[in-house]
Amino acid sequence: MNGFSTLDHLKAACRDLPEADPRADEAARARQGQLTKPPGSLGRLEELAVWLAAWQGCEKPGLNTVEVIVFAGSHGITARGVSAFPAEVTAQMVANFSAGGAAINQLAEAAGAGLTVVPLSIDTPTADFTRAPAMSEAAFLDAVSTGYAAVSPDTDLIALGEMGIGNTTAAAALAAALFGGTGADWAGRGTGVDDAGLGRKAAVIDEGLARHGERRDDPLGLLAALGGRELAAIFGTTLAARHHRIPVVLDGFVCTAAAAPLGRLHARGLDHAIAGHVSAEAGHRRLLEAVGLSPLLDLGMRLGEASGACVALTILRAAVACHSGMATFAEAGVSDG
Amino acid sequence: MNGFSTLDHLKAACRDLPEADPRADEAARARQGQLTKPPGSLGRLEELAVWLAAWQGCEKPGLNTVEVIVFAGSHGITARGVSAFPAEVTAQMVANFSAGGAAINQLAEAAGAGLTVVPLSIDTPTADFTRAPAMSEAAFLDAVSTGYAAVSPDTDLIALGEMGIGNTTAAAALAAALFGGTGADWAGRGTGVDDAGLGRKAAVIDEGLARHGERRDDPLGLLAALGGRELAAIFGTTLAARHHRIPVVLDGFVCTAAAAPLGRLHARGLDHAIAGHVSAEAGHRRLLEAVGLSPLLDLGMRLGEASGACVALTILRAAVACHSGMATFAEAGVSDG
Repeated sequence: MNGFSTLDHLKAACRDLPEADPRADEAARARQGQLTKPPGSLGRLEELAVWLAAWQGCEKPGLNTVEVIVFAGSHGITARGVSAFPAEVTAQMVANFSAGGAAINQLAEAAGAGLTVVPLSIDTPTADFTRAPAMSEAAFLDAVSTGYAAVSPDTDLIALGEMGIGNTTAAAALAAALFGGTGADWAGRGTGVDDAGLGRKAAVIDEGLARHGERRDDPLGLLAALGGRELAAIFGTTLAARHHRIPVVLDGFVCTAAAAPLGRLHARGLDHAIAGHVSAEAGHRRLLEAVGLSPLLDLGMRLGEASGACVALTILRAAVACHSGMATFAEAGVSDG
Repeated sequence: MNGFSTLDHLKAACRDLPEADPRADEAARARQGQLTKPPGSLGRLEELAVWLAAWQGCEKPGLNTVEVIVFAGSHGITARGVSAFPAEVTAQMVANFSAGGAAINQLAEAAGAGLTVVPLSIDTPTADFTRAPAMSEAAFLDAVSTGYAAVSPDTDLIALGEMGIGNTTAAAALAAALFGGTGADWAGRGTGVDDAGLGRKAAVIDEGLARHGERRDDPLGLLAALGGRELAAIFGTTLAARHHRIPVVLDGFVCTAAAAPLGRLHARGLDHAIAGHVSAEAGHRRLLEAVGLSPLLDLGMRLGEASGACVALTILRAAVACHSGMATFAEAGVSDG
């Protein structure tokens, strides 16, 4: 496909979501019951293996082609003093990704994953959402389409992340608009703002809610009005992954907020996604509860860049290694209790 | 050394523990502050890298030789109906380890670690601790010495685990004796006992406490009286690792209970150890609080075999990858806020 040319086209695509394969689910569960361990004793590793099997549609899932995709965008809201870092750091960090010096470069390599970084018009910040929608409909559809097109159908698993100075403000505004609450409820310290910066952030979010809050029942409209290009692209990738039945690992607060509209548009819209971790960003735990995801890790991380999702990949690899490699009770001649 | 020939010899070795290298600690902290990320944004990954650096005595720690060591032992207490699996499963699982079919085989390979399995007289169960000490002093010192000798001084990191039908009962009795409480407070379902089995387990622990509880101020005496050979060996490995300043990752309830006496014999005796995870076994969270360790993972695992510790290894690899591989702000030309 060549992208979404209209909002109606995109909305239709969000309603038409395939489900996981129930036969693969059942076969994987049966296999788990025969492996040489007490039933359930590998805890979430067992659930993860079954979840991967169900979405990949085979009893023994594979993690041969794992892709980390990081979208970067620039935010007009940075002019309001909402970040501890200057706006030019977005472009500088994109260069750092290219040079291999960022955390995500090391983490993707350690996790045996490919890394794709997609800068989205980072020389052209989105509009200040307190004055206008962050993106026009055309710019929004373009960013969603870019994210959608970033998915290769033969990928076994995708981990998603973002970079964008100012984007925890955008994500908090989006979360508040989708799930209720005020700026103070959802604002966190992001890259590390002080108390004054946190107050500015909450106030800016409240201004954004006042301007765009009447779209409360239009998740895509809120994503366009309060989000950013990288959030729209994450949404697009999450949607494409679902259409291809590719399981997805979300990263932190911004990434979860970006995917959240799919869960609002379709009751089971995020069934193919897991939360790699709960970040230290203030609103993430609340947001995960709102979207119904239980994080794999809780390591106090708050970097973004897909860093938490990428660490979680190693847990998925452990799950698959046990699921595919262990002997059954019969094979090993072990009494099964 | 050729092992501990007397308890006094062992006690002296437990008092004489080296500390981490403060210069390496300082250098690693300074490096973390220069890497291209907001300070603290990698959360526990930063703490882990600094902890490894301090114990390995170098600014950039390595994880080139990582060894998973699993000790196996047999328990006389199994005759009291405290496990969901028959006692012969211990030997069957040791065979499964050798054949490469167990969870820990897959997890060690996935974590890039070597695996050593050490069966400890598994044809000769320890005594039923409700009737006599589980081990004689000689048998206890022999098991501790075996664990001590299992450590190669040039190892970068050790992950510890165990196999032994009945050993969650031994561990619960040891935990209760060391930290107070009753059988009901510390007994868990282990491999999966039903309510009746759980009741038998709690009663057996209370019998053990009544017989051996007067040793409350003698942690090594309690380990000999209530533990098992694999617990004694884990204690010995933990001690040897400390003498060689090798960082250690503990596994679940049994492993933590086995290492706990070192923290009772020396105030900072477990500073070189981390808890890989908190297991689903009932008493583990309480035990971790008692020994002052904060688990890395909480994945509902309860298998033992070093499985949780081994999954945690992948987190340590992520920490080291970031610490050693990331660019500094100066190197990358990124503004540092």
